[in-house]
Amino acid sequence: MMSKVLILPGDGIGPEIVAEAVRVLDAVNQKLDLGIETEQGLVGGIAIDAEGSPLPESTMEKARRADAILLGAVGGPKWESLPMVQRPEKGLLGLRSQLELFSNLRPAILYPQLADASSLKPEIVAGLDLMIIRELTGGIYFGQPRGVRQLEDGQRQGYNTYVYSESEIERIARSAFDTAMRRDKRLCSVDKANVLEVTELWREVVERVSADYPEVELSHMYVDNAAMQLVRNPRQFDVMVTGNMFGDILSDCAAMLTGSIGMLPSASLNAKGQGMYEPIHGSAPDIAGKGIANPLATILSVSMMLRYSLNQPEAAQLIDQAVGRVLDQGLRTADIMSEGAQQVSTQQMGDAVLQAL
Amino acid sequence: MMSKVLILPGDGIGPEIVAEAVRVLDAVNQKLDLGIETEQGLVGGIAIDAEGSPLPESTMEKARRADAILLGAVGGPKWESLPMVQRPEKGLLGLRSQLELFSNLRPAILYPQLADASSLKPEIVAGLDLMIIRELTGGIYFGQPRGVRQLEDGQRQGYNTYVYSESEIERIARSAFDTAMRRDKRLCSVDKANVLEVTELWREVVERVSADYPEVELSHMYVDNAAMQLVRNPRQFDVMVTGNMFGDILSDCAAMLTGSIGMLPSASLNAKGQGMYEPIHGSAPDIAGKGIANPLATILSVSMMLRYSLNQPEAAQLIDQAVGRVLDQGLRTADIMSEGAQQVSTQQMGDAVLQAL
Ligand SMILES: CC(C)[C@H](C(=O)O)[C@@H](O)C(=O)O
Ligand SMILES: CC(C)[C@H](C(=O)O)[C@@H](O)C(=O)O
Repeated sequence: MMSKVLILPGDGIGPEIVAEAVRVLDAVNQKLDLGIETEQGLVGGIAIDAEGSPLPESTMEKARRADAILLGAVGGPKWESLPMVQRPEKGLLGLRSQLELFSNLRPAILYPQLADASSLKPEIVAGLDLMIIRELTGGIYFGQPRGVRQLEDGQRQGYNTYVYSESEIERIARSAFDTAMRRDKRLCSVDKANVLEVTELWREVVERVSADYPEVELSHMYVDNAAMQLVRNPRQFDVMVTGNMFGDILSDCAAMLTGSIGMLPSASLNAKGQGMYEPIHGSAPDIAGKGIANPLATILSVSMMLRYSLNQPEAAQLIDQAVGRVLDQGLRTADIMSEGAQQVSTQQMGDAVLQAL
Repeated sequence: MMSKVLILPGDGIGPEIVAEAVRVLDAVNQKLDLGIETEQGLVGGIAIDAEGSPLPESTMEKARRADAILLGAVGGPKWESLPMVQRPEKGLLGLRSQLELFSNLRPAILYPQLADASSLKPEIVAGLDLMIIRELTGGIYFGQPRGVRQLEDGQRQGYNTYVYSESEIERIARSAFDTAMRRDKRLCSVDKANVLEVTELWREVVERVSADYPEVELSHMYVDNAAMQLVRNPRQFDVMVTGNMFGDILSDCAAMLTGSIGMLPSASLNAKGQGMYEPIHGSAPDIAGKGIANPLATILSVSMMLRYSLNQPEAAQLIDQAVGRVLDQGLRTADIMSEGAQQVSTQQMGDAVLQAL
């Protein structure tokens, strides 16, 4: 069975880290004869420079016929003064919404080899393995009406709309319950149902869907309390589900609990199992081109891709094990460097993973 | 000069902790002859039970003529199934909006005596002293339109509106710059200007106001990154300013970095200097009536009140010092208890502060 993967290196450190991840993908593809074909495309700032749009139609066409997309990162100071609709981020948001990648899986996992990197005490975060499911194609990110208008008194007013329909809530809830069923069967839904009507509806629908998942223990938490609880005792959670905006904030907070965001992949899936895979860290323009960025989050994104979109769990496991092995060997890029370890470049880290495969 | 303070004990542990704080207020009032008069009022669940509304008009009248309000906490399971407009939280939100208490000061301070309580490593949080300024009467909390509507296809859709006008942004920005001027002169404004138009306007206005405060070093940060940075290295911040919703989340996250939210007060001020003061923790119904709640956050709220609304900085300092002394003595309520310390009840903690005054 052939499958097609679209590679979108993007901006900043994107090309460097994606190059290593593609080498790893090629290696497992050959080794296990997976029949994966890759092609490349432009998105973000580099697409603005080359084609005048952060998401050229040529890229969208390739994206539509791909089974999965591997994305590096988008954005950088060069494009920050552009009006919002022309910015690199719009490339990312456009892919999410046009492919209807509504279910964003953001694992926050603490690798035992990197336990020291966390700013939290070891007894609080050791063994952390949390999955945040973030709704990715709705909520205030895409809600209409939006913009800036002139009020009668002459001043301007900015406005955005936080909106969810029952069907949007239901499909992300199912995605979260399904994920919980494959894990420890505990799901915490995060909202602000004591203040926002849209999240009152959210809570009601999640509650209704839970009837179909009697084995999953469902709880609800206000978003402010969830932010507190992540800091206080993150291991109380198994799976969390929330809307686009709260998910943006909480998943980054959760990721940082591990202290090594250079290690964390993510998946964005649609109803057909098509998915976009990317590291959770950004384009890091300050270190771009220096060959020091950590490629492991992107390499682990390839592993998620093999698992969730390409149905190749053994290949995914090979990669996960290889990454574990290079960490055991004490190899570290600058961002996760610690005393006694051996600092390596982006490419050396890629080499080491290939070796370990 | 006479001043009037309205006492609103509220629900759960509210009455217990407020009782201790009022004893402390009375003591400094007598000692320094401050001419403070207090009266009591009902808000929250207790007001629903007694008068059928979380914010009776009698309470609003008292609130309008008060120079400052001391609030315990509102809410509890008893009232959670009520429709949103009748819930205890509406009492709190009504006070904020009717008195136009737009500027919410949320300090996150780590008391050296309680450094162990934090879930973060001591080298990350030692000496933490951060002030978050949260806009409190606008944004998505109060934006119109809001509600739940029926779509044409029969399903329901929930919606809220995130909205800020230039004048709303300007006044909270000035409040934040003024605060920064009294501190380390560094202000970080938090938004999501890469996605939300309302926060693009926010950034523009904050930038404009900064021209009047050339001594303050202004930076901007996206809210997801701010959540990360609070966990990674909270001491990089001096003052942060943000909207109502982001402020709700980030201030609770920041508070929890200290590990002792039972210690943290807050102030909500309007343009006339009138203010409402309350602990940041909630009504904690699970421990209500047991006499074990920590009254220190409420006592420190009295100190903030003396400083910000009643113009009595020496009295405020007396209270701060007294609280420092009881911590030095090793007295701890259950929530901040640690090995080798002496556990005391709510009232014993109040006694100790009075003694130390
Ligand atoms: C770049 C930005 C638009 C994006 C988001 O807010 O969704 C990023 O923060 C993320 O979380 O993937
Ligand atoms: C009780 C609730 C409405 C309130 C808020 O969200 O503002 C609380 O969380 C707070 O931060 O004071």
